[in-house]
Amino acid sequence: MDESPYIHGRSEQETDRLHYQASRLADLLHRDTRYPPGSRVLEAGCGVGAQTVILAGNSPGATFVSIDISPESLALAEQRVRAEGHRRVTFRQGDVFHLPFSEASFDHVFVCFLLEHLPDPVLALRNLLGVLKPGGSITVIEGDHGSALFYPDSPDARRVIECLVGLQRQMGGNALIGRELRHLLADAGFEGVNVSPRQVYADAGNPQSIEGVKQIFIAMVAGVREEAVRTGLIDADTWERGIRDLHRTTGQDGSFCYTFFRAVGVKGNQERR
Amino acid sequence: MDESPYIHGRSEQETDRLHYQASRLADLLHRDTRYPPGSRVLEAGCGVGAQTVILAGNSPGATFVSIDISPESLALAEQRVRAEGHRRVTFRQGDVFHLPFSEASFDHVFVCFLLEHLPDPVLALRNLLGVLKPGGSITVIEGDHGSALFYPDSPDARRVIECLVGLQRQMGGNALIGRELRHLLADAGFEGVNVSPRQVYADAGNPQSIEGVKQIFIAMVAGVREEAVRTGLIDADTWERGIRDLHRTTGQDGSFCYTFFRAVGVKGNQERR
Repeated sequence: MDESPYIHGRSEQETDRLHYQASRLADLLHRDTRYPPGSRVLEAGCGVGAQTVILAGNSPGATFVSIDISPESLALAEQRVRAEGHRRVTFRQGDVFHLPFSEASFDHVFVCFLLEHLPDPVLALRNLLGVLKPGGSITVIEGDHGSALFYPDSPDARRVIECLVGLQRQMGGNALIGRELRHLLADAGFEGVNVSPRQVYADAGNPQSIEGVKQIFIAMVAGVREEAVRTGLIDADTWERGIRDLHRTTGQDGSFCYTFFRAVGVKGNQERR
Repeated sequence: MDESPYIHGRSEQETDRLHYQASRLADLLHRDTRYPPGSRVLEAGCGVGAQTVILAGNSPGATFVSIDISPESLALAEQRVRAEGHRRVTFRQGDVFHLPFSEASFDHVFVCFLLEHLPDPVLALRNLLGVLKPGGSITVIEGDHGSALFYPDSPDARRVIECLVGLQRQMGGNALIGRELRHLLADAGFEGVNVSPRQVYADAGNPQSIEGVKQIFIAMVAGVREEAVRTGLIDADTWERGIRDLHRTTGQDGSFCYTFFRAVGVKGNQERR
C-alpha cells in the first residue's frame, strides 16, 4: 500500500490515541463548528476519522466529503463513521496539493491537525480556497507544541518535546504552527480571519484532565523515541529522564497546559490571488 | 520613605501601566470575583489600587481592607479609590509576613500579582489562611512569563524575557509562578483548590489586543533594561534586538499569547496546619 510518511505513525495504538484525543477535546475544539442543513463541507486530511464523527454528529443536516492521502487511514475512517451510523459522509482518496474537485464546489472547508504536517501550508490553503464557494468559510484547528507549559519545569522534558518538533521539521512539517494561523490564512487570501486559542489545563484537582495529558500529549511525544535516539537527536538517558519528568507534571503537585488554535476565515467575493 | 524593593519600580509611568493593565484585563481576570453584600474582604498587596477599584466596583455591598507594604503605593491607591467614589475600602500599611489582623477576621481574601514577588509564597498563604474565617475563600491571580508564546519566534526576544525572570528571581521572586498555584495553595492548607488559566491572545485582527501587548507586556519587560545590561545578564545589542523582535510580534503577521492563572481555595473547618 502506498503510504505517505506520517510523524506519529499509523499503528492501532496511534489510531486509538487519535480517537481518544478527539473525543476528549470535542467540546473544547469543535463545539462551535456547526454547518447548516444542506451545506456541503470538505474535510481535508480526515485521517482515521477521529474528527469526522464529531463534525457529522454536530451538523446532522450537512453533507461531508472527507479526504485523506492515506488509503489505509481512509478505510479506518469509513469503518468508524459507518459504525457510528453517519450516512452523509463520503470518503475519497486525495491530497490538498492535488485536490480532486472542481472550483467553488464546497460551502465550507474544515481542516484539523493537517497543516502542521505540510511543507507548504499556504499553498494547501490556497488550493482549499479554490474549491470553496465565495462567501464560504474555512475552519482550521492546529496545536502548538511550544505552548506546553508545566510544573515541575524540566530542561529534559523540554528536550524530548523538542525532539518531536525537530523530527516533524525534518519531515517538512511544523509542530509550532498554531501561533501562525492568522498570517497563514491571510497569506493564502482568506478574509476576516479570526483566531481563538483553546487552552487545556490539567492538575491533580481534575483526574480526567491528567489522564488526557498522559494519553494524548505524553503518548504522542513518547511515540518518536526510537527515531529521536536512532538519529542522535537525544541520548537514551536524557530521553528517559525527560519522559519521567513529563510524567511528574501529572503528579500530585504538578500542572500542565497546552494551547490549540482555531482559526476561521472567509472566501471573499473578489478573490485576491 | 521606607521602600521595599519592587522589580517594576514605582514610577508614575509604571502606575499608569498598572492601571491600564488592570482595566484591560478586568473582564478576563476579575469577572467572576464577586463578594456578597456584608462580607469583609482582605486584599493583600493592593499596590497602587489598580485591582482595588475593579473589586470594589464588582462587589458594591462588600467591605474591603486593602494592605500594601509600600506607604507610597497605598497613598496612590487611596487617592484612586476615593476618586472613583468607593467608600467601603479601608487602607492599611502591612505585609503578608506580619499581618496586622487577628485570626479568622475576614470572610474572603484576594491576592493579585503579589506571590510572584515573595521569597516564601507558601508562608504568605499560610498567614492569609490564618486571618480567614473557616469556610472563607482565597482568590489568587498571578501571571507566568514562561507562557509567552509569539510569532515570529525569536531567541533574542526570549532572552529579554528571561532577563526579567532572572532579575525577579534575584530579588527573591518567581515570574513563572502561575503554573504553581495549585500546589502552593494546597501546601499552605487550602482545600478544594481550583485553578483556571486565563489566556490573552493578540494579533493584527484585533488592534486593541495588540495595544495591550505593547503597553502591558513589552513595557514591563523593557522596564528592566538598565538593570539587565548593568548586571551583565545581557549585552545592549542583544537587548535591542530582543525588544525589536518583541515589537515585531505586534506587526501585521505577528501573534502573541500570554496566560494568567486564577486559583480559588477554601479554608476548611478543620484547619490542617
